Amino acid sequence: MSQESNSNSLLAFENLESNVRSYSRSFPVVFRTAAEAILKDEDGREFIDFLCGAGTLNYGHNDPDLLNQAIKYLYSEGIVHGLDMATSAKREFMECVDAIILRQRGLTYKFQFPGPTGANAVEAALKLARKVTGRHSIISFTNGFHGVSLGALAVTGNRFYRDAAGLPLADAVFMPYDGYWGAENDTSDYLDRVLGDASSGVDMPAAIITETVQGEGGIRPAAKDWLRAIEQLCKKYGILLIVDDIQAGCGRTGSFFSFEFADLVPDMVLLSKSLSGCGLPLSLLLLKPELDVWRPGEHSGTFRGNNLALVTATAALQKYWTNEKLSQSVSESGRLLNERLQQAAQAGRDHGMSVRGRGMMQGLDCGSGKLAGEIVRKAFEYGVVVERCGAEDHVVKVLPPLTIDKVTLQRGLDILGKSVRESV
Amino acid sequence: MSQESNSNSLLAFENLESNVRSYSRSFPVVFRTAAEAILKDEDGREFIDFLCGAGTLNYGHNDPDLLNQAIKYLYSEGIVHGLDMATSAKREFMECVDAIILRQRGLTYKFQFPGPTGANAVEAALKLARKVTGRHSIISFTNGFHGVSLGALAVTGNRFYRDAAGLPLADAVFMPYDGYWGAENDTSDYLDRVLGDASSGVDMPAAIITETVQGEGGIRPAAKDWLRAIEQLCKKYGILLIVDDIQAGCGRTGSFFSFEFADLVPDMVLLSKSLSGCGLPLSLLLLKPELDVWRPGEHSGTFRGNNLALVTATAALQKYWTNEKLSQSVSESGRLLNERLQQAAQAGRDHGMSVRGRGMMQGLDCGSGKLAGEIVRKAFEYGVVVERCGAEDHVVKVLPPLTIDKVTLQRGLDILGKSVRESV
Amino acid sequence: MSQESNSNSLLAFENLESNVRSYSRSFPVVFRTAAEAILKDEDGREFIDFLCGAGTLNYGHNDPDLLNQAIKYLYSEGIVHGLDMATSAKREFMECVDAIILRQRGLTYKFQFPGPTGANAVEAALKLARKVTGRHSIISFTNGFHGVSLGALAVTGNRFYRDAAGLPLADAVFMPYDGYWGAENDTSDYLDRVLGDASSGVDMPAAIITETVQGEGGIRPAAKDWLRAIEQLCKKYGILLIVDDIQAGCGRTGSFFSFEFADLVPDMVLLSKSLSGCGLPLSLLLLKPELDVWRPGEHSGTFRGNNLALVTATAALQKYWTNEKLSQSVSESGRLLNERLQQAAQAGRDHGMSVRGRGMMQGLDCGSGKLAGEIVRKAFEYGVVVERCGAEDHVVKVLPPLTIDKVTLQRGLDILGKSVRESV
Amino acid sequence: MSQESNSNSLLAFENLESNVRSYSRSFPVVFRTAAEAILKDEDGREFIDFLCGAGTLNYGHNDPDLLNQAIKYLYSEGIVHGLDMATSAKREFMECVDAIILRQRGLTYKFQFPGPTGANAVEAALKLARKVTGRHSIISFTNGFHGVSLGALAVTGNRFYRDAAGLPLADAVFMPYDGYWGAENDTSDYLDRVLGDASSGVDMPAAIITETVQGEGGIRPAAKDWLRAIEQLCKKYGILLIVDDIQAGCGRTGSFFSFEFADLVPDMVLLSKSLSGCGLPLSLLLLKPELDVWRPGEHSGTFRGNNLALVTATAALQKYWTNEKLSQSVSESGRLLNERLQQAAQAGRDHGMSVRGRGMMQGLDCGSGKLAGEIVRKAFEYGVVVERCGAEDHVVKVLPPLTIDKVTLQRGLDILGKSVRESV
Repeated sequence: MSQESNSNSLLAFENLESNVRSYSRSFPVVFRTAAEAILKDEDGREFIDFLCGAGTLNYGHNDPDLLNQAIKYLYSEGIVHGLDMATSAKREFMECVDAIILRQRGLTYKFQFPGPTGANAVEAALKLARKVTGRHSIISFTNGFHGVSLGALAVTGNRFYRDAAGLPLADAVFMPYDGYWGAENDTSDYLDRVLGDASSGVDMPAAIITETVQGEGGIRPAAKDWLRAIEQLCKKYGILLIVDDIQAGCGRTGSFFSFEFADLVPDMVLLSKSLSGCGLPLSLLLLKPELDVWRPGEHSGTFRGNNLALVTATAALQKYWTNEKLSQSVSESGRLLNERLQQAAQAGRDHGMSVRGRGMMQGLDCGSGKLAGEIVRKAFEYGVVVERCGAEDHVVKVLPPLTIDKVTLQRGLDILGKSVRESV
Repeated sequence: MSQESNSNSLLAFENLESNVRSYSRSFPVVFRTAAEAILKDEDGREFIDFLCGAGTLNYGHNDPDLLNQAIKYLYSEGIVHGLDMATSAKREFMECVDAIILRQRGLTYKFQFPGPTGANAVEAALKLARKVTGRHSIISFTNGFHGVSLGALAVTGNRFYRDAAGLPLADAVFMPYDGYWGAENDTSDYLDRVLGDASSGVDMPAAIITETVQGEGGIRPAAKDWLRAIEQLCKKYGILLIVDDIQAGCGRTGSFFSFEFADLVPDMVLLSKSLSGCGLPLSLLLLKPELDVWRPGEHSGTFRGNNLALVTATAALQKYWTNEKLSQSVSESGRLLNERLQQAAQAGRDHGMSVRGRGMMQGLDCGSGKLAGEIVRKAFEYGVVVERCGAEDHVVKVLPPLTIDKVTLQRGLDILGKSVRESV
Repeated sequence: MSQESNSNSLLAFENLESNVRSYSRSFPVVFRTAAEAILKDEDGREFIDFLCGAGTLNYGHNDPDLLNQAIKYLYSEGIVHGLDMATSAKREFMECVDAIILRQRGLTYKFQFPGPTGANAVEAALKLARKVTGRHSIISFTNGFHGVSLGALAVTGNRFYRDAAGLPLADAVFMPYDGYWGAENDTSDYLDRVLGDASSGVDMPAAIITETVQGEGGIRPAAKDWLRAIEQLCKKYGILLIVDDIQAGCGRTGSFFSFEFADLVPDMVLLSKSLSGCGLPLSLLLLKPELDVWRPGEHSGTFRGNNLALVTATAALQKYWTNEKLSQSVSESGRLLNERLQQAAQAGRDHGMSVRGRGMMQGLDCGSGKLAGEIVRKAFEYGVVVERCGAEDHVVKVLPPLTIDKVTLQRGLDILGKSVRESV
Repeated sequence: MSQESNSNSLLAFENLESNVRSYSRSFPVVFRTAAEAILKDEDGREFIDFLCGAGTLNYGHNDPDLLNQAIKYLYSEGIVHGLDMATSAKREFMECVDAIILRQRGLTYKFQFPGPTGANAVEAALKLARKVTGRHSIISFTNGFHGVSLGALAVTGNRFYRDAAGLPLADAVFMPYDGYWGAENDTSDYLDRVLGDASSGVDMPAAIITETVQGEGGIRPAAKDWLRAIEQLCKKYGILLIVDDIQAGCGRTGSFFSFEFADLVPDMVLLSKSLSGCGLPLSLLLLKPELDVWRPGEHSGTFRGNNLALVTATAALQKYWTNEKLSQSVSESGRLLNERLQQAAQAGRDHGMSVRGRGMMQGLDCGSGKLAGEIVRKAFEYGVVVERCGAEDHVVKVLPPLTIDKVTLQRGLDILGKSVRESV
C-alpha cells in the first residue's frame, strides 16, 4: 500500500496517527534506515543522530554485531516470546550481567524483568518498596522524570505530563534536587530536616527515587557529595534508595552505572533504554536480595524479558563491557562534547546560555524554549537530529551515540555550533 | 558463560532471578527453540504449546514468513528504534491496519502507539477518557484483568495483584460482569440502576472498560445482548466504551476484533499481545477521531511503535487477514476444541467441571485450583504447556495457536483429556 | 442592630449569608421561639414542626426539664467547655448511658467523644476501623448518608454532595442496600458473593457502615433479616459493623437504638442529633472494648463532649429512658403516622405515591421531586414545617417530635393530607 | 448515679471512656466548676487555667454577661436548634459581626456556618477552594495544624495524627513555614520557585492555608513580611489564601483577627474556638463574596449555627469588641507574659530554652518533650493548668484568658517560673 505514498510524505501520519504524536512533528521527514550515528530519510538524506532514541541507542543504530546475533537467533528458531519462562537466552543474559557487570563492581543484585519499558521498572520498584516497608509515600525530586503510567507519573515532576493524568496524583512528595535552591543551600539538609521532623507534614517514605543526571528534566547532574548524602539519609531513616538509571545508565556518563563515580550502592537500580543494545524494548530491575519479598507472579506482564532483546543485550555486554575501551572513549568524547558546547554557548552568553552534563549526556541551557527551539530547528535543517528537554523545553539535550566516530561527532557539533550562532 | 550450565538447569534462575518469576516454576525446564505449536527445551524435548504466551502467539512461534520479513528488515538497516518519529515501517503498518482491518469493517479510528505493552494501552486509554470527559472514575467488571501498572491495576479485579500495589487503588468501581449474579439477573440492569440513581454512591464514570471474553479472569464470554446493553448504557449516560481486546483480539475468537459478533463500535479499542505476530512487544490504542484531544507528546514513552515489531505486524496482517481462511479455521478448530474439552469435562462432572469460551479461547473450569493445578502439572509431564486462570486458579485456560494443524491439536487434546482423567 | 430589621425580613440572610444556606429558602420566615412541636416566627405565626432539626429534636423544642437542668448548670458555674478533661458532668453522662441504656440491653461499649457532630463520629469510626483491621476500604450502601467532611463524604451516596468535594472520593465502595435490586433479590447475597470472590475487584473492607433506616437517602427501612445477614457477613469476613444511628437512634424508631428490633450487636454505634436532648451539638461513638486501640489523643478536637450538652443529655436519658412510656408512645404514634400517610398517599396513587418507614420516621415517596416540593411548599403555607429527602428530593420526610401530643400530630397530618390532595 | 463516685475519682473514665482520652490523663482530677481564670475540681481545689480550652476561652470561663444572655434566651424559649433556618438570633449575630468587626476593618465577607467545629470550617473552605479553582491540591505548612477529619488532616503536619488516618493522605503539599530552614532563608522564595517551575512536581494549588501563629505546631509566629509575601504569591499564581484563625483569632494576639498586623485580606477566614465566647461549639467561615459559588445546601450539617452559641457570640462581640480595651489589655498582658517567660527561660538557657509568640499566645520551647512534660506536671501540682504543643511536645503553650486580672496572671506565672526552675 505504502507504494502509493510519496517519498517523505507525512500525510498518513496526519490522517491516521493521534495528535499525541510528537517527534514526527519536530523532524518532519520519514526515516527509513539507520546505521551507527546516521539516520536516512526516504529521499536518502542523511542526519547525524544526537538524540539516539532519547538515550536508547548508546551503541548507535543497528550495530552489525548485535544485529548478527539477532538474525542468527531468529534463523535458529530461538524462542522470541516466552513470558517469563526459563529460556537459554535469558539464562545467558543474567549470567552475563552478573559476571561482566555486577561481580566486577562487587555488587550483588537479583534480577526482575518487569515488562519491557522503563516505566514498568519504575512501577515494579515503587510497588516493591511499598511492600517491603509498609509505607506508601515516595520521595522524588524537582525536575525528575520517571515515566507516564499512573504510578510512574506520580513521581514525575513535569506538569505537562501530570495534568494529562486527569486525576490528582498521590503518594509522592517532591523535594528540591541538588542545586535547586541556589548553590549556597545543600538541599539534602532540607530533606534531612523534614524527614527528622515529626510535624513536617512529609510522611516517612518507602523510597527515594532519583536520577544521578536528570535527563528529561534538563540535563542536571547531581554532585557526588549530594548523592552520597541522599544515600546516608536513606540509611538513617530506613528508606530505600532507587536509582533510575534508565537514561544515564549503560555507559552514557562513562561507567556502566551512572552512580559508580559516587560509590553508591542503591537498594534498587532501574535499567532500560540502551539495555538491549539495539533499541528493542527491554527493562531490568536490579534489587538487593534481601528486598526480594515478591510472591511468585505478583507483578506480571506479557512482555517480560523478550528473548530477542535479551540476545542483543547479551551481545552488547560482551562487545562493549568486557574491557575499558568504551568507558575511556566516553570520557574523551564527553570532554570534547562539553568543550565544543561551551564554545557554542559563548555565542549565546548574552542569553545566559550555559552547558552542563556528565560524560556523553550534555545539555545546552538556552534560557528559553523559544531560542532552544530555533536552534533545534536549524540543526535539523542542517542535518542534525537533536531535541530539547527541561520544564520549558529550554535545554538542547545532546546525546550522541557513545560509539560515534570523532569525525562525525565534530561534524555534528559544527552544525550545532552554527545553529546556535545563527539563532542568538 | 552459559556453557557451564547443565542442560535444562534452573540453578541460574533460582540464584539470580527474583522470587517474582512465575512460569519458570510451572514449567521447570529451560526452553531453547520453538516453531509453530511446538516448544523445545535444552534436551530437545518437545512440548505442544497451549499457552501461547497467554495469547501472544496466535500465529504460533516463529512464523517463517514473519521472521523473514524481520530478518530482511534488519539486513536492510531498517530503523529499529525511532521513538515516535515518522518511519516507513510505521506508515506501512498504519496503512495496512486501516485498509485491511478498519475500512473492511466500516470502522474509523485514529492510532496511538502508547508504549509496547497492553498495560501501556490501558493507561493511555484511561487517561484519555478522563481528559475527554472531565470525570475521574472508571467502571470495570468483576474478574476483569487489565494489567499491573498502577492505573491499569486499579481496574483489575484480582486481589492477589491488587494487594501487591501497597496502596489503596482508587478511581475505579467494579460492577458485576455478565452472569455474575446468576443466570436470571441481567447485570446490565443493575449497572443502569446505579448509573441512573443520583444517590447510588457510584460516580458517573469517564469510561467503562471491558473484555468481551475475560481471559485471566477465567475465560468468561459475555453474551452479545449484554455487550450491546453495555454499549447502550454508555451512549445513554455519555460514558466512553473501551474494549480491552488485548487477549481476545487478533482473531482469537474468530474475527479480528472479538466484539465484531456483537456489532459493537467501541470508543476505544486496545490491542497488544498477538499484534506483532511473533511475540515482539507492541501495543496499539484505536480511538474514535472525535476523542483525539491529546496535545502533542502528552502521553510519551521510549518504546512507542518499535519498528521491528511494526514490520512483523504488517506481515501478519497481510498473511492472515486479507482473506477469511484464518477466521474459518478458528471457527472449526474452536468447535473441535470445545467439543473435546466438553468430553474431558465429562470425566470431571462429579467435580462440577464445565467448559466455556469462544473460538480458540476455551476454559475448563475445574471448580478448584488444586484440581486444575494437578491437571496442568500432568499435562506438562505428558508434553503440553497449558496454564490456569481465574480467581482461584481453578480454570485450565486453553489457548492453542490459531494456526495449529489438526493433528497436533488433537494430540494436545488427547494429552489434556488424559491428564483430566488421571486427576479427577 | 437587628431592631432595624423588619419582622421576618430575610434581607440580612440574603446579603450576608453564603448561597449555601438551604432551609432558610424552604421556610422563608425568621423563626424566633419554639416549644415542643411548635415553631414561632417573628410575627408570632405558629408552625407545627415535622422536621425537628432533621431528627435532632426527638423530644421537641426546649423541653422545660432539660432547659431547667441547663440553666441550673449555668447558674452553678458548671464547666461549659473543658476539652476532654474529666468533669463531673461527663462522668454522670457516661454512668447514665451505661446504666440506663447499655446494661439494660446487655451491651458493653466504651465511649468516645469525637467532636460534637455526627460526621465527627463517622470520621472517628472509620479511622478506628482502618487502624484495627489494617485495611483501607469501607463498604457503604446505595442511598446512604453519613456526612460531608471528606472522610464521611466518601461513604455518602448522593452525587450532589459528592460532587462538591472537588476531589475524587476514595476508599469506599457502595453496595446495594436492602431492596435496591427488586424485592426478589436479596442484596446481602450479592455482597457475600463479591466479598468471597478474590477477583471481584472489591477489596476486603475494614468496615461496613449502615443505617437501619436510611434517613436522607429517602426513609428506607432495612428488613430485620437483611440486617442480620449483614452482621453475619461481617463476622464471616472479619469486617467491623458500624451502625450509624445518628438519625434513627435515640428512640426515633421506638427503641433507643434503632437496631434493637433485629438483635444486632454492632462493633461500633454512632449517636448524635437528638443525643443532647435539646439540640445542642453532641456526638458519641460507642465501640466494643476490644477495638479500643486508640493511643491517647490520637483523634482530638476542641469540642469533644461539651459539658452543657452532656448535662441536658443526661437529663433526657433520665426523663425519657428509665421507663417504657416513650417507646410505647412512639409505637402508637408511629402507627397513626403511617396510617394517615397511607391515606394521604391514596390521593396520589396515580403518581405511584407510597409510604415507608419505621416508628416516627416515615416517608411519603411522591415519585418526583417536583410533586414532593409542591406538597412541602403548601404544607408550609398551611403551617407545617416538613422537608424532602431522597436522591431526587422526591420523598416527603415526616419526623414529628416523639413527644408530640396526639392533637397536634393529627392537626399536622390534616394539613399534610390536604397539601397532598391539593398537589396531586 | 454519680453520687456513688468518690470525689475526683477517675475510675469511671478509666472504665468507660476510650483510651483516646487525653487531657484527663494530664490533669488527673475531676473538674466541676469554673469562673474566669479559675477551674475547681470536685474537692474544691483551684487551678489557674493557662490552657483555656486550647484557645476556646479567651474571655475566661463562664463570663457572667454571656451566661446571662444564654439563660435569658433559654427562658424565653428562643430557638436552640434550627439547622440553618433563618432565626432572629442568627440575624443578630451576622449583623453584629458585620457592623462591629468587618465594616470597622473595611472588610467584606459572606458568612458560612459550616458546622460547629473548626475542622468543619477547614473542610468547607478546602471544598470551596477546589470548587472555585478547579484544582485539587492545597498547600499547607510544616507544623501546621488544622484538624483531624480526613480533609483537614491532610493539611495537618503532625505524623502522630496523620498516622491515625489509616489511609494515605492526599491532595496536600507541605511547604516550609516562615523560619523553617534557618533565619537566612526566606521560605517564601522557595515557595515562589516551586510554584513558578512547571517541572517542580508541585501542582498549582487551589489554596494556601496557614495560621499566622502556629498553635499546636509549637507557637510559631510568622513575620509580617513573610505573610505578605505569601499573600502576594497567592495573587501572582491565582491561589486562594485561607487564614485559619481558629486558635489565633478572636483577640488572642491583640486584634480580633490575628492577621490585621500584616494588613492581609485573606480570601477566606476560619473562626471557631473562642467565637461563641463561652465554649459552646460554633464555627464560621468568612469568604469573599466573589467566591460564593456554593449551590444551596451543597455543604450541609445538622449543627450549623447553633443558636444558643450565636446568642453568646453576639454578646461577646458587644461586650469586648465595641472598643479598644481588650486589645490594649492583650498588648500589655502579652508583653508581661513574654517577659516573665523570658525570665523563666533564663533558668533553662543550658537546655536552649527560648520563648516565642505574639500577644497572649506564648510558647516556652524547652528543647525536649521530657523537660516540657516535667514542667507541665509540676505546674499542675502547684495549681496551674498548662499544656504542651509542638512536634515533640517540647513547647509549653501558655494561653491565659485574655481577660485575666494581673494578680492571677502573675500568680500563675510565678508557679510556672518555679516549675521551670525545679525541672531544669
